[in-house]
Amino acid sequence: MQNYGVIMAGGIGSRFWPMSRTEYPKQFHDVLGMGKSLIQMTFERLTKICPAENILVVTNELYFDLVKKQLPLIDEKRILLEPCMRNTAPCIAYANFKIAAECENANIIVAPSDHLILNESEFVDTIQIAFDQAETAGSLVTLGIKPSRPDTGYGYIEFEKEGARNTRSVKDVIQFREKPDVATAEEFLGEGNYFWNSGIFIWTLRDIQKAFQKDLRDVYEAFSQGTAKYNTPEEKTFIESMYPNCSNISIDYGIMEKSDAVQVILSDFGWSDLGTWGSLYTHIDKDVNDNAIVGKNVLMYDSQDNMVKITTDKLVVLQGLQDYIVVETEAAFMVVKKSDEQKIKSIVNDLKESDRKEFT
Amino acid sequence: MQNYGVIMAGGIGSRFWPMSRTEYPKQFHDVLGMGKSLIQMTFERLTKICPAENILVVTNELYFDLVKKQLPLIDEKRILLEPCMRNTAPCIAYANFKIAAECENANIIVAPSDHLILNESEFVDTIQIAFDQAETAGSLVTLGIKPSRPDTGYGYIEFEKEGARNTRSVKDVIQFREKPDVATAEEFLGEGNYFWNSGIFIWTLRDIQKAFQKDLRDVYEAFSQGTAKYNTPEEKTFIESMYPNCSNISIDYGIMEKSDAVQVILSDFGWSDLGTWGSLYTHIDKDVNDNAIVGKNVLMYDSQDNMVKITTDKLVVLQGLQDYIVVETEAAFMVVKKSDEQKIKSIVNDLKESDRKEFT
Repeated sequence: MQNYGVIMAGGIGSRFWPMSRTEYPKQFHDVLGMGKSLIQMTFERLTKICPAENILVVTNELYFDLVKKQLPLIDEKRILLEPCMRNTAPCIAYANFKIAAECENANIIVAPSDHLILNESEFVDTIQIAFDQAETAGSLVTLGIKPSRPDTGYGYIEFEKEGARNTRSVKDVIQFREKPDVATAEEFLGEGNYFWNSGIFIWTLRDIQKAFQKDLRDVYEAFSQGTAKYNTPEEKTFIESMYPNCSNISIDYGIMEKSDAVQVILSDFGWSDLGTWGSLYTHIDKDVNDNAIVGKNVLMYDSQDNMVKITTDKLVVLQGLQDYIVVETEAAFMVVKKSDEQKIKSIVNDLKESDRKEFT
Repeated sequence: MQNYGVIMAGGIGSRFWPMSRTEYPKQFHDVLGMGKSLIQMTFERLTKICPAENILVVTNELYFDLVKKQLPLIDEKRILLEPCMRNTAPCIAYANFKIAAECENANIIVAPSDHLILNESEFVDTIQIAFDQAETAGSLVTLGIKPSRPDTGYGYIEFEKEGARNTRSVKDVIQFREKPDVATAEEFLGEGNYFWNSGIFIWTLRDIQKAFQKDLRDVYEAFSQGTAKYNTPEEKTFIESMYPNCSNISIDYGIMEKSDAVQVILSDFGWSDLGTWGSLYTHIDKDVNDNAIVGKNVLMYDSQDNMVKITTDKLVVLQGLQDYIVVETEAAFMVVKKSDEQKIKSIVNDLKESDRKEFT
C-alpha cells in the first residue's frame, strides 16, 4: 500500500507525426493496433505493482480530458496538470510533493507513458527487486536495458565493470552517457558494461526528496512553498503561478548524473521507447514481405519492408514501395523513406512555422 | 441550328481508380484541378459548335443525378439513360433516333465526355471543316490526332499515303488499327500516315443512319421499333426492355472499320484521352522537380516525377518518392509506381471480386 506509481504523460512525440499531434499525442494512441493506447497499457502494467488508487499521472493540462477518458479508474485528484512543459525534474518533484501530502513512507516508480514492454512478468519481478533495493540501500534505482544492437537513439548507462552481469543484477552506476554516435555505440556494446537508459526510476519518497534538496534545491524550494496546498482547492492556482518559473531540466541531468547513490538493475523484459516509426517497425509482426501493417484495409502489392499505420477505415493500396513509412490519420497522410525518418521532426517544425500549424 | 452534339458519358474509367469509381466516374471529376469536371469542360466546348439545347448526353442511368447537377443547362429530355453498358454503337444509335424525331437534317458531332482538349479554337475550326466535309462529301468523319510519341495506349488510323499531311487536311481512311505494341507504334510513327484515333466523330444524321442500316442492321432495327416513342412518356419503358438485348459493340468495330466512306481530318489541338494517370501527368504543370500536383495541401520533399492528385483537404507529406502516382480520395488512397500503372486495372478487378467491392 506504500507503493506509488507516477506516469509521465506530458510529451508530444513529434517524431511520430502525423499520428502523434499536439492535440492528441502518441501516448494516447493505440500505436500497436492492440485495442489499447500506450498509456492504458502503462497504467495496467503499474497496477501489478501499485494499487490503482496510488497511481498518479502527470500531464499537460491540454490532455486532462484524454486522460480522464482513457483512464476512467484514475481519480481526478491523481491527474497532475502541468500548465507548461518543463521537462522531467519539475514533473517528478510535483508528484513527490503530492505523494508526501498523504504518505511519507512511499516507494515510488516513475515511468514514461509511451513505452513498450513485452514481458510483463519479468518487468514486475524486476521492479520488485528495485523497490527492495531502494528501501534497503537507499539508492536511486534506474533500469538499464540489455542492448541488442548499437542503437544511437538511446542514452546509455555505464556501470561497474566488475562482477556478474546477469539479468536482475544490481550494479553501481559510473556515469550516464548521452546518445552516442555509431562508433561509440559499438564500443559500448563491445565493453559490455553499458546498458540502455530506460527512463524508468524507482526510489523511496524520502531519498528522492533528499536528492532534490541537494542537487535541485531551487525546484525543491519552489514546490515546498505549496506544502499546505496540495490536495486542496488552492493547489491549482499555486501550480499555475509557480510552474512556469521552474527550471526546465531533466531528472537525468538534474539529479541522476550528479548523485553518487545511483544504482542500475540489469533488465531484459522486451523494452522499447517506441521513439520513432522505425522502432515501432521492429516491434510489430511482419507479413511475408516484412511489411509491418497496422490498419484495417491495407492492400500491398510488390512492396517490402514497409511500416504502415492507418488509423482510418480508408482503403489503402500500396504498390512498388520498399522501406517506407506510410501513415494515414484523419488529418494527414505521410509517406517517408524509413532511412530518412529523422527528417519527420524537421518537417513538423516547418509546419509549425507555416500557415499549416493546425496539422501539427 | 441543325448542329447537334452527343456526349458519351457512360464509362467508368477504372484505370483512374481510386478517383474514378463506379458511383462517381472520371468524367464527373475535376481531374485537372481547374474548378470544372471533364464533362463540364466537354459541354462548354460543344456549345461553341452547337446550340446548348441541341446537346445530348448519353449516360448510364446511375449517373442521371450527377449529369443534372453538373450540367444544369441540359434539359432532362436530353439526358439519355442506358439501363446497362452496351459500348458505343447502341449509345450512338439511341442518340440518332432521338435526334431524328425532331430534326431529320441534323449534323452531329459525337464526343467522349472525359477527354482533354487544350487548344479550343483550333478544335472548333477543325470541327467546322469536319461538318462541311460530312455535308458535302457524305462521309463519316473522324479526327486523327497527330502523334507526338509511339503511344501504345491509343488506337491508330491509317490514311492514304499520298498528298499533303498538313493539319486540317481531309484524308481517306485505309484502316483502323488496334492499340499496337511498341515496335509497331514506332513503325507507325516512321511511316507518317498513322494518326491517333480520337474517338470523336462527325457525320450527318442521314449518313450515320444509312451506315447503321447497312452494317449494324440489328441495332438499327431494334431502335427503329421505338420510332413513335422517342420524346414521349413511353420512351423509358421501351429503352429499358430493348437496350439489354442490343449488341455490345463499338462504333469503331461495328461501323467505322467496315464503311468505305470514312475520312479523317488531321488534327492537332492538344488532345489527350486522359486514359491513365500517366497521361494526366503529361498534361499538368510540373513543379521544379517535375512533380505534377493537384491538391490543396501537398508538401513534397526529396521527390521527383510524381503524379499527385488529392481530392480531400488532408495534409499530404511525401518524402523520397520518385516516379509514383499518389492519389487520395474520401474513400481510398493509393501509391503506385508510375511504370506499373497498368496494374491499377487488375487491382480494381481484385477488389471487385473481394469483400471490398464497395471501394470500386
